[in-house]
Amino acid sequence: MERGQHLPGEFELIARYFAPLAKGFPGAFGLTDDAAVIAPEHGHELVAKTDAIVGGVHFLADEPPDLIARKALRVNLSDLAAKGAVARAYMLDLMLPRALDEAWVCGFAHGLAEDQKEYGIHLIGGDTDMTPGPVTIAIMAFGEIAVGRMIQRGGARAGDTIFVTGTIGDAALGLAVLRGALPELDPTSVAFLAGRYQVPLPRVTVGPRLVGLATAALDVSDGLAADLGHICEVSALAAILQAPSIPLSAAARAALLAQPGLLASVLTGGDDYEILFTADPASEAEIARLAQAVGVPITAIGTMVAASSAAEHRVSVLDATGRHVVFDHEGWTHF
Amino acid sequence: MERGQHLPGEFELIARYFAPLAKGFPGAFGLTDDAAVIAPEHGHELVAKTDAIVGGVHFLADEPPDLIARKALRVNLSDLAAKGAVARAYMLDLMLPRALDEAWVCGFAHGLAEDQKEYGIHLIGGDTDMTPGPVTIAIMAFGEIAVGRMIQRGGARAGDTIFVTGTIGDAALGLAVLRGALPELDPTSVAFLAGRYQVPLPRVTVGPRLVGLATAALDVSDGLAADLGHICEVSALAAILQAPSIPLSAAARAALLAQPGLLASVLTGGDDYEILFTADPASEAEIARLAQAVGVPITAIGTMVAASSAAEHRVSVLDATGRHVVFDHEGWTHF
Repeated sequence: MERGQHLPGEFELIARYFAPLAKGFPGAFGLTDDAAVIAPEHGHELVAKTDAIVGGVHFLADEPPDLIARKALRVNLSDLAAKGAVARAYMLDLMLPRALDEAWVCGFAHGLAEDQKEYGIHLIGGDTDMTPGPVTIAIMAFGEIAVGRMIQRGGARAGDTIFVTGTIGDAALGLAVLRGALPELDPTSVAFLAGRYQVPLPRVTVGPRLVGLATAALDVSDGLAADLGHICEVSALAAILQAPSIPLSAAARAALLAQPGLLASVLTGGDDYEILFTADPASEAEIARLAQAVGVPITAIGTMVAASSAAEHRVSVLDATGRHVVFDHEGWTHF
Repeated sequence: MERGQHLPGEFELIARYFAPLAKGFPGAFGLTDDAAVIAPEHGHELVAKTDAIVGGVHFLADEPPDLIARKALRVNLSDLAAKGAVARAYMLDLMLPRALDEAWVCGFAHGLAEDQKEYGIHLIGGDTDMTPGPVTIAIMAFGEIAVGRMIQRGGARAGDTIFVTGTIGDAALGLAVLRGALPELDPTSVAFLAGRYQVPLPRVTVGPRLVGLATAALDVSDGLAADLGHICEVSALAAILQAPSIPLSAAARAALLAQPGLLASVLTGGDDYEILFTADPASEAEIARLAQAVGVPITAIGTMVAASSAAEHRVSVLDATGRHVVFDHEGWTHF
């Protein structure tokens, strides 16, 4: 790595900020070696996921570095959770503009440290480089699951109920808020929505308990409608979504009251990092008990149905009166 | 991912160029799922490595995309090989400027496809994003090794001989050539050195056969002197390097004849991606047989020695007359 004017050298950065994050994971060799060693427990396999985030694209450049670190990590932990896996470790590639100072790296590492405690994981390797572009963060996360039990996208069956954890649309509305939209919104709602955009809450207490219960699952990152579309496509089915059933936070309801046109963002905005899954309707009571046990709402929002051709592997949205709804850039329209 | 003007959407890019690279690895699910599943063979564990490269920092922006792809992949395969591991799979995060066109991605994927055949590996996951910065490529590679047998940096012993594969300094001289230095050099040497910079040759036939033979190993990426320094530091030893023993290619000799001042680049320039390792002097005959068997030169270049304090965990370089040599920005000086 060539040196920035404001940053210590690569080896100092690693020793000072990143090596401490590897403590407690023997296969990380204290980040003093070139590679890490990781093996699943007997009868288990590793689930591997990578997701990168780019300054100005996936986060706002002036966000606090600890929040950026948490977001980079959590978008990956969210995927592992949705697949039913328990997160164990991660690697980090960090591309830094020269203008960043050491305080930024310190804040970034602090965010990682806090989340490591929260999720019981360790940093086991990585790379730091200078870039003439924006801060760019690539994370590769490793989880563990019993052999053959990863919850895939393709296992949904016609007649399955569609469920989603938590609430939908907060992150999209949070981004709108951070960009100065919704000036009339109350401060509590503003803070809640902005926080949901800046720091996703991976549903780690739910995902692993869906193994054997969910027939298909993924986390909502592209938007509820698009991600349900992914399940449809890989499962070769269609989906019917009941719009009034989609769970909204109090803050999202307040925002929509102020600007009803933002409703499309709720369905298509993405970055929710809730788990969207399908399950046999007979499992509904068990899923309700699970939601109760972990303290995370799980809401039935629709049904998977048969589709006779690839062109029909899509999502239909119905309103309270059972009419089809379509949405465009402005919001929703009926037809 | 937001769309570039010249590129198809993310899902189209994946389907067209990257999903074919996942064929043959069941745990990759054809890149239609959110995560991959990977498990080591019985009695083995995974060795995980990540390295990122950035346009304008680690490669020149106008290099052919297939060569950039190969470099991104090979710098990781080189690490796995140096650790004794056999590469099996990799994940890819690709950050693309909007101005790139589909032909670039096509060329990039072609480079990956060629190297997959060459090294017997598969793409099992990844992420593509737009960036306002330069092309940025993060690769995470997975290898496999018998439990507990990864060759670490810290296992060297006083009295061990220091070995290196191939030749040293070609890549540093190749970068100089590509930047227009050495206009007097013959075209054959120019092509050879430029190629060594653009496309590293990971020593995959050597590394796994060093398990049980090498006491410490790493690949030369920071420069021969610096990387030997890493072994010294983690092994708590010093090293004496015999400068005349350092293996040079015919092209490097020609370049140094033209500009002797470039000799420092040979020792400190980096990007060689040869394996630097230490072994008991009694293993020398076995190592010579290994070099013969795989057709890769392996040269003894020095000795590990005891050091009484951390300040002494460093590399001394001796010239043909046994005098200490130091080098600065200009080249070498004696003292």
